Amino acid sequence: MEPSMAPVEMEISHPTYIIWGSNTSVGKTLVSTGLAFSVLSSTLSSTFLYLKPLQTGYPQDSDAAFLYCKLSEIFQTTHLEQCLSVSNQVLHVSGSVVGDDDEGGMRNVNLFQESSIGFVGEEAGNSNSHLVCKTLYCWKQAISPHLAAQRENAWVEDEQVVESLRSCFGQRLGKDMCGRKEDVWRVVETAGGVASPGPSGTLQCDLYRPFRLPSILVGDGRLGGISGTISAYETLKLRGYDVVAIILEDHGLLNEISLLSYLRNRVRVFVMPLVPQDPSNGLMKWFNDSKKVFNSLRDVMLTAHLERIQKFRDMSTKAGDILWWPFTQHGLVPNDSVTVIDSRCGENFAVYKACEDREMIVPQFDACASWWTQGPDTTLQIELARDMGYATARYGHVMFPENVYEPVLHCADLLLEGVGKGWASRVFFSDNGSTAVEIALKMAFRKFSCDHNIFPNAINECLGKKSVEFKVIALSGSYHGDTLGAMEAQAPSIYTGFLQHPWYSGRGLFLDPPTVFLRHAKWIISMPKIMELYKWDFEVPSFDHHKELFHSSRDSSDLFQCYTTYITKQLSQFSEEFEATHIGAVIIEPVIHAAGGMHMIDPLFQRILVNVCRKGKIPVIFDEVFTGFWRLGRESASELLGCLPDIACYAKLLTGGIIPLAATLATKAIFDAYNGNSKIKALLHGHSYSAHALGCTAACKAISWFKNPSLNLNISTTGVELKEIWDNDLLLQISSHSSVKRVVALGTLCAIELMANATNVGYASLYASSLVQKFREEGIYMRPLGNVVYLMCGPCTPSRICNELLSKVYTGIKEFVQCQSAKYLQT
Amino acid sequence: MEPSMAPVEMEISHPTYIIWGSNTSVGKTLVSTGLAFSVLSSTLSSTFLYLKPLQTGYPQDSDAAFLYCKLSEIFQTTHLEQCLSVSNQVLHVSGSVVGDDDEGGMRNVNLFQESSIGFVGEEAGNSNSHLVCKTLYCWKQAISPHLAAQRENAWVEDEQVVESLRSCFGQRLGKDMCGRKEDVWRVVETAGGVASPGPSGTLQCDLYRPFRLPSILVGDGRLGGISGTISAYETLKLRGYDVVAIILEDHGLLNEISLLSYLRNRVRVFVMPLVPQDPSNGLMKWFNDSKKVFNSLRDVMLTAHLERIQKFRDMSTKAGDILWWPFTQHGLVPNDSVTVIDSRCGENFAVYKACEDREMIVPQFDACASWWTQGPDTTLQIELARDMGYATARYGHVMFPENVYEPVLHCADLLLEGVGKGWASRVFFSDNGSTAVEIALKMAFRKFSCDHNIFPNAINECLGKKSVEFKVIALSGSYHGDTLGAMEAQAPSIYTGFLQHPWYSGRGLFLDPPTVFLRHAKWIISMPKIMELYKWDFEVPSFDHHKELFHSSRDSSDLFQCYTTYITKQLSQFSEEFEATHIGAVIIEPVIHAAGGMHMIDPLFQRILVNVCRKGKIPVIFDEVFTGFWRLGRESASELLGCLPDIACYAKLLTGGIIPLAATLATKAIFDAYNGNSKIKALLHGHSYSAHALGCTAACKAISWFKNPSLNLNISTTGVELKEIWDNDLLLQISSHSSVKRVVALGTLCAIELMANATNVGYASLYASSLVQKFREEGIYMRPLGNVVYLMCGPCTPSRICNELLSKVYTGIKEFVQCQSAKYLQT
Repeated sequence: MEPSMAPVEMEISHPTYIIWGSNTSVGKTLVSTGLAFSVLSSTLSSTFLYLKPLQTGYPQDSDAAFLYCKLSEIFQTTHLEQCLSVSNQVLHVSGSVVGDDDEGGMRNVNLFQESSIGFVGEEAGNSNSHLVCKTLYCWKQAISPHLAAQRENAWVEDEQVVESLRSCFGQRLGKDMCGRKEDVWRVVETAGGVASPGPSGTLQCDLYRPFRLPSILVGDGRLGGISGTISAYETLKLRGYDVVAIILEDHGLLNEISLLSYLRNRVRVFVMPLVPQDPSNGLMKWFNDSKKVFNSLRDVMLTAHLERIQKFRDMSTKAGDILWWPFTQHGLVPNDSVTVIDSRCGENFAVYKACEDREMIVPQFDACASWWTQGPDTTLQIELARDMGYATARYGHVMFPENVYEPVLHCADLLLEGVGKGWASRVFFSDNGSTAVEIALKMAFRKFSCDHNIFPNAINECLGKKSVEFKVIALSGSYHGDTLGAMEAQAPSIYTGFLQHPWYSGRGLFLDPPTVFLRHAKWIISMPKIMELYKWDFEVPSFDHHKELFHSSRDSSDLFQCYTTYITKQLSQFSEEFEATHIGAVIIEPVIHAAGGMHMIDPLFQRILVNVCRKGKIPVIFDEVFTGFWRLGRESASELLGCLPDIACYAKLLTGGIIPLAATLATKAIFDAYNGNSKIKALLHGHSYSAHALGCTAACKAISWFKNPSLNLNISTTGVELKEIWDNDLLLQISSHSSVKRVVALGTLCAIELMANATNVGYASLYASSLVQKFREEGIYMRPLGNVVYLMCGPCTPSRICNELLSKVYTGIKEFVQCQSAKYLQT
Repeated sequence: MEPSMAPVEMEISHPTYIIWGSNTSVGKTLVSTGLAFSVLSSTLSSTFLYLKPLQTGYPQDSDAAFLYCKLSEIFQTTHLEQCLSVSNQVLHVSGSVVGDDDEGGMRNVNLFQESSIGFVGEEAGNSNSHLVCKTLYCWKQAISPHLAAQRENAWVEDEQVVESLRSCFGQRLGKDMCGRKEDVWRVVETAGGVASPGPSGTLQCDLYRPFRLPSILVGDGRLGGISGTISAYETLKLRGYDVVAIILEDHGLLNEISLLSYLRNRVRVFVMPLVPQDPSNGLMKWFNDSKKVFNSLRDVMLTAHLERIQKFRDMSTKAGDILWWPFTQHGLVPNDSVTVIDSRCGENFAVYKACEDREMIVPQFDACASWWTQGPDTTLQIELARDMGYATARYGHVMFPENVYEPVLHCADLLLEGVGKGWASRVFFSDNGSTAVEIALKMAFRKFSCDHNIFPNAINECLGKKSVEFKVIALSGSYHGDTLGAMEAQAPSIYTGFLQHPWYSGRGLFLDPPTVFLRHAKWIISMPKIMELYKWDFEVPSFDHHKELFHSSRDSSDLFQCYTTYITKQLSQFSEEFEATHIGAVIIEPVIHAAGGMHMIDPLFQRILVNVCRKGKIPVIFDEVFTGFWRLGRESASELLGCLPDIACYAKLLTGGIIPLAATLATKAIFDAYNGNSKIKALLHGHSYSAHALGCTAACKAISWFKNPSLNLNISTTGVELKEIWDNDLLLQISSHSSVKRVVALGTLCAIELMANATNVGYASLYASSLVQKFREEGIYMRPLGNVVYLMCGPCTPSRICNELLSKVYTGIKEFVQCQSAKYLQT
């Protein structure tokens, strides 16, 4: 399976189910047949679409043909007043099936048969029911599809299976347009057990995951069947499926009682009569005896379907009523703009959408990487699911101080060998970027106090009257989190005003940095206004490729002198002005100011700042919460900058994007500043779930996955960087468009700032909103930062997918701008 | 299964494995036999202990007898130079087995047979190997143990099975004392599939979980076997087992290739030859053909065993080298006091311990509830494991603002119907208690500003020169988290000094509260010194039971007047003194100051404080991070206090104790203070993983589990409170002991403060350390708060277990004190 499969767009107005078996030969097809009979005989006019994507042993074995024949037989023998038309279609067969063993391959055959039972035709009016059977791919040998595909040399890619199935769902059935939606049923029957491989070898539970259909599990009523049924159920849960009911054959062992007890009655369990070994009347008696069971099963399935739909319909209103979204003015979010998310499959959401009389699940690429946390493709997501289950069962949560357990040690190891390589020697865990930054600041201040021998009078301290003030150097426009301590390290902005926090005072020396971006196909440096004070008499260079920006040769450039002067003058000016105030730390987001609007800071400037501070024994903090773990194409952005921190903060992608975990890494020298004989000198900061086992387990998996070239095909041959994800020509084009102010593309990020006039600029701007709404309609879930729209993929997302999206975005922007200016001309 | 089963104490020096089957009849016993042969023939002197806990179909079927016979036969036919002594013992059989069908029940029989192959005796010297087979429980009928137990009316409780098995592990085998540890192997063979029920109906994968033995899975090589094997593997992972190898019979379908591909080669997969349907020579040829495979399997198992042990040995040192524990002075933690935690099973850790020449896994009750987070018993833990797997597979993480997905809505619903009932209307999610408190403070200040029409001059604000100051009322000794904003709401302490955070200034009006505790069998009120200013002329009452403390009748007591005067005077004094400073919020930990030393605050005092503030339109915050979700016997501690907050913070037990998640609940009036036309007026605070799907899913399960009387047997008949967990007589006794200063027992908490003299008092005191070390030796993992030792159980922990622990603790304290005073007298 391609590592990234998106959820499939499909209508969900009709009851649609997938039937799984806990083993082979547990009676999946009998259940399909019984269910079809129940549905088709329940109303005078209904349609039952039966889909068998994979059939081996064909044509001797054909589950669709079984339904086709049996339903006809049942309807004939039960003398129903209804008319039934039945059809059976086979779309593709392997060469072997048609006697062409040598050549192999799959053939489009479109075999079709149909017939009618009862009085069919116009006179039948509405009392005409339809059984529509379709088999998508057939192989001759009666073995698992992956073996059949191999032995008959007739392969089908996962994408083909998914697409064929999607296309079957997409076809409007005759009955679709009239009658109640519940009168059309659609059932997919799998082959073998839940985890039996499909033709490519991908397990079927993974293969069909993009549909995430509500599921019926046919259990095993035989000896050992409890175990097999429970395990199959758990395999489905580990893929995110909802199992609506379990049904099993009665072998007299009362397996259903054990199942119900284990499932605590949360899943309905049905028992169908024992199937006679040698049925004399073509199972007609059995179907008759089973009718009640299948009617009950049908009722449960219908109820579950209706409840699912109703839940979808209610969710946005209810969300608006009881939730309190962060960074959201609730009054500005109408119910119909709330995104109702059914599930996630790799980088894509499956979103519920009601349009006209149809209700749909549609895929939306998570282009904001859910606040920049996301890394997993579909394969990694499923691996993480198993790992999360395992970690919960093995550890749950275990208190951290003075304790050790495997995942925390492994995780710390991976961090020190990865992002901390060459400098860090200790890992301090917390819960999110903001806490990681607070911890980093505490560490830096302690280190500074030790190095500069600053400890205020103990009595004054207790009274809260500090004889010494500490401030931090930070860059204007940087953002380090929302708790007070982290906020204090940010320059004043709308995030920090009295309205937001009366306690904010801005304890920083905030420097305006030069930024860089792609404009008119060139990487341009934008100097901050304040630097005009430090007049330069050279031409500020521009660059063809972002790689040049990071080159160490720039250390001998004119700009180097200019930046150095600016920084050192600012520092000395500050210390003249505030004598009792120390600069106790410097904190930067290396390379990219994310929340501040996806601004790229000239890496030369940051490198100089770091070096100047280090000379002054000011501890250096890198806030890598956004930039860490390949976000910018390197495992750590410090590799881009070409200098190292004393302390660095990680979160977001650290767990691959599954659960909160943060780590503050520090050098030995920082750690040693806490050495002493008393606990009072220790770092007295900790959160309940520090280094929780689930987070560390997820981090271990994600960190090693992302950097493994056999799992992450984006890793370059050198193993130290991601290949360029975004198509450079396309980027250059976009950067040259008149409505685009700047482009910043680096690693997994591609940000585009739109031109704006005075009224639509800034964070609170709604200018981009309608554009973003349009992208969501087109399957791209974006969240703008003011006028900045951006795409963010995962470290493993195939470049092909990224550039398809980027093209779409470019087209979208062009259309949007045209439309806007047309409107402008009209007014 | 009793909802709480602890890990089992056992020696792990020898390779010890459990053999699971992915189905019945996949050849588990053949694997045991092949493995036994491999081990016994690999060295001249080795012992193989084969344990079959559950045998049905006895005596016709006896897997132990099969081993007993086959090994004899193999050794005879292969003419090995070794001597082999074999024994076979059956411990218990059902009445039916001995022909006593009527009476049922299990009988102790201790059937025993033994024999020797080769030249055995003293002359054999060291070349004498032993096969020791034991079958623990046998039933006659060849069906699943739970059915056999039922039909033969011969039940065995889970605890008995576990205890019998533990006892077999506990017996030293003849060879144990000499030779290499690896020469003694112990193998447990399960019955049926991984999730086949044991005699009580508990699935075997759950039944044997307290041992968490390294596992071998016998897979299924037949058609459909890939699915069954993978599902069985996943079932084991969902119980926290490590599967070291999979072995399956060769049916020519190459199932092993699919398995290896799916498992990404992380688990070794072995193939054993097809077992002939009609073996002419008693399988001797087959065993000969399989020898190589079983030798490889044995090698893999031995290597994994040695690696496991080595990892345990290295962990504490490595932890000390690279981790940075919170609240820990690393220099004070010698390697051998680091707790190496193998796993958790419900309320207990499984801890690695090396003592003399034995290496052990021992259980330790997590008496600090891992920083007060823990709730799950073993059953809930396994349910959470499945839920965490499901939530990861279905959602991973999904960005929250303007989105909705099922678990967040459900979780918010449960919160508003539970802890927020009657007052809260909105839920704001964050990551931990500290962030929840920061958010609460922001909310309160906004509300206060609106209500009192306070908005400072915008320009001053931007310059950070506030014209208005905000402070918060808080109680001395309370603790609200470690981020700066939360710290500011705490009175100065060692947590907040310059050494810890130069930015802390203590923005509070900190009131000294009266505390209550059990002493000499009475609940006594301890008045703070400052109240002496407000002289009272009545006798401060004491109480027989803590319930009286919460009674509303106290609102007409003398103390009511006294407290009211104190609080109002303090407030008016403050506003006189600091004119430009507003009290913008009041924050309390209702009823118990946890981190502050498990002090119970007189609830009357807190109730008055809340009411006084409410009159002054000061928003009221309850920090329920510790007290929420039954910690104190009620779902919310506000039920105890008898008054409601405007804002309340929850974390810790919210997810049952699995992963970080926090919620700040607020009234509609608070939420409305953020209404406006602009995003700028919204609450601009959020964390990447706000309302993450895993956390919400865990919270949904935990919240509903704890309050469900059919799942939580501690819930009283009224459904609103926990039954009294701690034995009152025992509490009274303890409170009367001369070395006990005070006892606070409420809900799941039982705290005991030990008497101390001036040198051993306070947070940094090491006085209790040696006591705590002693308790750890005895299987109770405690973490003292200065001189306060405490037991904390989960909401579901059976009272019987709690009181066993409490008795142990009382005995321990008495002995400790005696020992201390003896030491004192000696010196």
